Amino acid sequence: MSMMEKLGTRKTEIDRELEVALAVGDNETLRAAMKHYPLAGGKRMRPLLSYLVADAISGNGRITVPFGAGLELLHNFTLVHDDIMDKSDMRRGIVSVHKKFDTPTAIIAGDALFALGFEEICKLEVDDVLLRIILNDTAVAVREVAEGQQMDMEFEKRNDVQVREYLSMIDKKTARLYFTAARVGAIIAKGTIDQIKAMGDCGYLMGVGFQIWDDVLDLEGVEEKTGKPVGGDIREGKRTLIAVHAMTNLKGEDRKSFLSVLGNQRASRKTMQEATDLLHKSGSVSYAKNFALEYIREAKEKTSVLKGSEAKDLILELIDFAIRREG
Amino acid sequence: MSMMEKLGTRKTEIDRELEVALAVGDNETLRAAMKHYPLAGGKRMRPLLSYLVADAISGNGRITVPFGAGLELLHNFTLVHDDIMDKSDMRRGIVSVHKKFDTPTAIIAGDALFALGFEEICKLEVDDVLLRIILNDTAVAVREVAEGQQMDMEFEKRNDVQVREYLSMIDKKTARLYFTAARVGAIIAKGTIDQIKAMGDCGYLMGVGFQIWDDVLDLEGVEEKTGKPVGGDIREGKRTLIAVHAMTNLKGEDRKSFLSVLGNQRASRKTMQEATDLLHKSGSVSYAKNFALEYIREAKEKTSVLKGSEAKDLILELIDFAIRREG
Repeated sequence: MSMMEKLGTRKTEIDRELEVALAVGDNETLRAAMKHYPLAGGKRMRPLLSYLVADAISGNGRITVPFGAGLELLHNFTLVHDDIMDKSDMRRGIVSVHKKFDTPTAIIAGDALFALGFEEICKLEVDDVLLRIILNDTAVAVREVAEGQQMDMEFEKRNDVQVREYLSMIDKKTARLYFTAARVGAIIAKGTIDQIKAMGDCGYLMGVGFQIWDDVLDLEGVEEKTGKPVGGDIREGKRTLIAVHAMTNLKGEDRKSFLSVLGNQRASRKTMQEATDLLHKSGSVSYAKNFALEYIREAKEKTSVLKGSEAKDLILELIDFAIRREG
Repeated sequence: MSMMEKLGTRKTEIDRELEVALAVGDNETLRAAMKHYPLAGGKRMRPLLSYLVADAISGNGRITVPFGAGLELLHNFTLVHDDIMDKSDMRRGIVSVHKKFDTPTAIIAGDALFALGFEEICKLEVDDVLLRIILNDTAVAVREVAEGQQMDMEFEKRNDVQVREYLSMIDKKTARLYFTAARVGAIIAKGTIDQIKAMGDCGYLMGVGFQIWDDVLDLEGVEEKTGKPVGGDIREGKRTLIAVHAMTNLKGEDRKSFLSVLGNQRASRKTMQEATDLLHKSGSVSYAKNFALEYIREAKEKTSVLKGSEAKDLILELIDFAIRREG
């Protein structure tokens, strides 16, 4: 079995858990809206991370599935709400929830996915003492994801966002759930304090790397693979690491020209291409790529607390996937 | 000390818990948006219900405060999101969150209040086994509140909603949190199975009575006391018990005339008054009043599982308040 097949077996367990969890409730429209993203694919990075970390520590990764599925539902709730705020029409190659249904239904579906995520986590077969801690940590993490989204939106109104601020934003908005996935995986498997700490760090580093690579894919990805139109982040005015770097490093006419495209939903393909050229000229794309590669390298180093195993190899595979994927 | 003063002492404890809980997070705008409703007053019906039920059973109601505060935060999260969907500009006499801030911030503030509600409940000083059950029950309840809101919105497109359907909707949208408040209060206080069951029923009945009285206050209340414009539910096209009854019982021109006002945001004060007259003529207002009174009567009967105490008297007071209040 190849590494990807071995990952696939675990992914199937997670997918099945999600399918069962989402066959819930009495309202057909709400159920359809809740299922729309989570059952439209998705890489299941967070649940896989929990699963593999526990596997590497105790050999029993399967026990994490309700937790991982819960995290995945929580992640999907944030996607549903974010797409409303960002007025995104596409996600994973399908039309977004608020476009397919309507905005009120999308708000409610997000709320219901949030609740369902906690229901899933409550199923976790761990000591009750541990469950309280896990639930509390997860609630804090979700609140921080919300705070990260707020920062993200506020940044869209500013042309002077610093790298430090960008990192603080994606720490909350993206990396926090990866951190929680890996850390809780280690907690569930009763890892040592060193392992718990290192796995949290590993998740954080991987999450940052993953997000920055997402920013890169927005420009260099292929629509068929990312499921989103090329340059969508730029059109939406997102302060990605690439944009943040460009705003500091582009000068004069080039800067003006880039700023006129940033946040311009109606930017033509040609204008968009010119902006992309500028982002290469300023070195912003390669800056972001190197940044992501460095975080991914450090994330892999953190796995040194794990003894050698197939699961550990798969973790390294998963971390690498953050920067090897095309969508 | 009067009954209201005795309630007030407990309310102060709950208010204080909420103030401390809401001094959270790093983003100023988000924090302000989160505080906007919960710290603008509110009757704290749900936390008071938990508190008093536990007091009546074990004498230690104070222990419920983190749970009650958590429920109050969850209730407030639903208000923030509902007001976006209902396009309501006013709440508790102040401008709504999405009007004061903006819709994205309101969506995020609701999400963050949701998370914070679970953080609060995690603080509850009960056995960890019990906490898992309480958290799961609360997550299910919140998902059902979401489902109730979805039904409410779907009903707005229909002129044939039945009383049975209305009741199923407010069971989820409103009564479920009252049910949970009273039932969990009894669980925390280690009540007997009979007490837990009866208190759940009591909360449910009180919640239904409370909601129907809210429907009545929409027409008969005074704006200064309710904090909302008179007839707002009718203008928004809400299928309240009054509207549901009227749609079945008004005939011919009267029905047509009422339907022309229902959901008409621009209905004049005069048109609104004519619609209100029709709702009295059809007997819909008194039908709803009697309906609420009957539920409140039954809710009070459920307290027979509690031995006599000051807390029990206060529960009866609180139940009565559902139909004695002016806002």
